[in-house]
Amino acid sequence: MAETLAQKLENSNLGHWMQRFESFMVFIGIVGPFATLPQLIKLYFTHSDHASGQSLVSWSLFATLSFLWFTYGLVVGKLPIYVGNGLSMVMNLLMVVGILIHAGMTY
Amino acid sequence: MAETLAQKLENSNLGHWMQRFESFMVFIGIVGPFATLPQLIKLYFTHSDHASGQSLVSWSLFATLSFLWFTYGLVVGKLPIYVGNGLSMVMNLLMVVGILIHAGMTY
Repeated sequence: MAETLAQKLENSNLGHWMQRFESFMVFIGIVGPFATLPQLIKLYFTHSDHASGQSLVSWSLFATLSFLWFTYGLVVGKLPIYVGNGLSMVMNLLMVVGILIHAGMTY
Repeated sequence: MAETLAQKLENSNLGHWMQRFESFMVFIGIVGPFATLPQLIKLYFTHSDHASGQSLVSWSLFATLSFLWFTYGLVVGKLPIYVGNGLSMVMNLLMVVGILIHAGMTY
């Protein structure tokens, strides 16, 4: 198999930058799910009257996908995958519940 | 390091199930971004009057995060990571543009 850019970087003087990038992405994987918080605040508190503009289909799929990645992360034993996606799953399920409360059945 | 569940599965009679799960997650990583399509249809076509309920902060962060994962995927040479997140980046940027068009500056 061809050497990936990551392997080339690791074998070069830039190796420590690749390690920093890896650590940074672990951090990103865990804090990323919190990006949904402003959307949750709008849905539940400040813009509930616009809840029908939220897609129940999209957020239900997001919840399903994060559940699958959470399960996959547990099976392969990768903490950044299961912690990040476990948090995402909670956020996405809260979006689904909020849409059902404030807009009812929609697409 | 302790053997992960994935390694135990691979070394057992269940090995072929683990391979199927891996292939399934590659598929999920690539089709997952399309989950955003119903949300884009609501924002651009059917529920543009509810655009102010969409969080510009959340979708901008989603776009930034998918850009970082796209870059990481390219560097480590993992097709399911960069293809899936490249597509997500496009979807998330379309959400950001749609919010700016239909709701203007918001949080």
